[in-house]
Amino acid sequence: MGPHPAVAAIRLAVRRVLHDVLNEVSRNTAACPAAAAPAHPGAADPERDARTGTDRAGEPPPLVLVACSGGADSMALASALAFEARKLAVRAGGITVDHGLQPGSDLRAAEVASRLSALRLDPVEAVAVTVGREGGPEAAARDARYAALDEAAERLGAAAVLLGHTRDDQAETVLLGLARGSGIRSLSGMAAVSGAAGRYRRPFLHLDRQTARKACLVQSLPVWDDPMNADPAYTRSRLRHEGLPALEKSLGKGVVEALARTAQLCRDDADALDRWAADADATVRDEAGLLECAKLYALPPAVRRRVLRRAAIAEGAPAGSLFARHIEELDRLITGWRGQGAINLPGRVVARRQGGRLVIRQG
Amino acid sequence: MGPHPAVAAIRLAVRRVLHDVLNEVSRNTAACPAAAAPAHPGAADPERDARTGTDRAGEPPPLVLVACSGGADSMALASALAFEARKLAVRAGGITVDHGLQPGSDLRAAEVASRLSALRLDPVEAVAVTVGREGGPEAAARDARYAALDEAAERLGAAAVLLGHTRDDQAETVLLGLARGSGIRSLSGMAAVSGAAGRYRRPFLHLDRQTARKACLVQSLPVWDDPMNADPAYTRSRLRHEGLPALEKSLGKGVVEALARTAQLCRDDADALDRWAADADATVRDEAGLLECAKLYALPPAVRRRVLRRAAIAEGAPAGSLFARHIEELDRLITGWRGQGAINLPGRVVARRQGGRLVIRQG
Repeated sequence: MGPHPAVAAIRLAVRRVLHDVLNEVSRNTAACPAAAAPAHPGAADPERDARTGTDRAGEPPPLVLVACSGGADSMALASALAFEARKLAVRAGGITVDHGLQPGSDLRAAEVASRLSALRLDPVEAVAVTVGREGGPEAAARDARYAALDEAAERLGAAAVLLGHTRDDQAETVLLGLARGSGIRSLSGMAAVSGAAGRYRRPFLHLDRQTARKACLVQSLPVWDDPMNADPAYTRSRLRHEGLPALEKSLGKGVVEALARTAQLCRDDADALDRWAADADATVRDEAGLLECAKLYALPPAVRRRVLRRAAIAEGAPAGSLFARHIEELDRLITGWRGQGAINLPGRVVARRQGGRLVIRQG
Repeated sequence: MGPHPAVAAIRLAVRRVLHDVLNEVSRNTAACPAAAAPAHPGAADPERDARTGTDRAGEPPPLVLVACSGGADSMALASALAFEARKLAVRAGGITVDHGLQPGSDLRAAEVASRLSALRLDPVEAVAVTVGREGGPEAAARDARYAALDEAAERLGAAAVLLGHTRDDQAETVLLGLARGSGIRSLSGMAAVSGAAGRYRRPFLHLDRQTARKACLVQSLPVWDDPMNADPAYTRSRLRHEGLPALEKSLGKGVVEALARTAQLCRDDADALDRWAADADATVRDEAGLLECAKLYALPPAVRRRVLRRAAIAEGAPAGSLFARHIEELDRLITGWRGQGAINLPGRVVARRQGGRLVIRQG
């Protein structure tokens, strides 16, 4: 008798990601002749060999970490990583971050670490961080968490860090992006692969939260429900417990899936348009490298706005502070020219139209 | 003392659209030498002359219709059209559609028509339609309504038909599109200009519903609240009264504005990508006009999927039945080729990969 369907689902999701990681590690090893051993099929893991045509004789197996809060999603992920890593010549470790935001969070983190060790993950670390205030409590906690995960991954030489975000998290992220109203890049949610050199992987992005919970239940894994997740002071928590359920009630049960699919489609669309804008950039400049208004005018609005955004960022405007309304104002220098004056952008960047050119400079 | 701000807002919105319509009418007249009179500035409406440099001596002023349900949005629109048309040498008329879905709807329509006449619109018509069943009750009612408006516009020789959709309607439309999960075209909501030759105009797409209601109130216009708008049997009604308010509660009051802005950005993005796909189409075909898989593979995924969608539609697949999952399956013939068989698409269209070509044919 095979495992429970929920357990099978989480393991399959992790197995696929581990295969990707192993393939990339092999490719990088092969691309570096000093480190690459000659291929002799059959020596190492056969499945990996079959996929890559190389082995890594003499190299220690790569380390894959799971970032685990102790909640159901990341505990399910940790259990699946522990199981699959044993079959694939991968070392599996775990990191839990103590955000220090609640009394006793250090004890909680130690308990999560011991649960990870009980799954036979090794190394396991509980890392304490100090959460600042920049960008609000959720953003500050996230920044501190990723900084700690980056540091641990570097120090331990991890090939990848797995994150437990589910399809439900993705749906929430899309709605949070929608609320910003700043276009399809903010509708693209979280990427399956992100971070420096694709360090972060999200194997559960196509699985629902319910599957992760079920997998913990049938494996008798203790889970911890972070009270922050239910605190209506947090936007994401309100969205999870009120906004999204109400939307499902209005629009039907498929909303979460539709939002996740929207994220993927928007990501691909945004990538294609960014590429177009990068190509167009070179064609709309004069010999001095200044943007020519007439050529900008001839671009499709979606491409022109991206070229303008790129230009502002290149001159020092911080991407995160550059909103749709800034780009609209900039665009009116091209499409609604009536002699208006210089436009101030974030980062002390100033844009003005001069002699048929758009001049963007840090002031 | 000027008008109430809400009244000023609805009039400004209508005035802008009427200027656009007049400019286009003049341009079309000028483009047709037999109909164009020689320009003698000052003869006709000065504001129009100033913008177009032509008049239309001998021509009757163009007719602009308002489609009016009797609800606050379209009554506000009718009042603003009546007011602005008098200043702009435009004839203003009104149409109300009797969908025949409730007992006494004919009397209701006659009452709305008399309210339009009281605003001194002329001609005014109440048009009865028979609502079918295709696509569900809301889609069937919409289809019947637009068919009746098209017919009336043709028969009366109207230059434009104004529709009372507000920013709130737009936000709802975006969420309905989101629930389909079929990409950015369905997130683009309603266009400000649509229909054959840009017949339909939506002057209130950037105004909120509250402004329209207020404008009716301060002008003492009687309005009729369609019970269908509050009937939870309808998706849009549930969204309006439950889903969207819950989302606002979670995400903040700016959600409606953010959704409307998202619609505009998505529309521009979708237009640009459609253009790219149309251009790419010619570059990925062999001499026989067949799609070459290797060339398709080299396109960005967002562009490739659009090329595939175009190709399926060109061979007879009905656009409305072609879902994201069909295109994904088609795309796997290019990106995940493992010898799979023919793929059946809606409209008896069959796609298969043969000798490095993608062959799409109606079977």
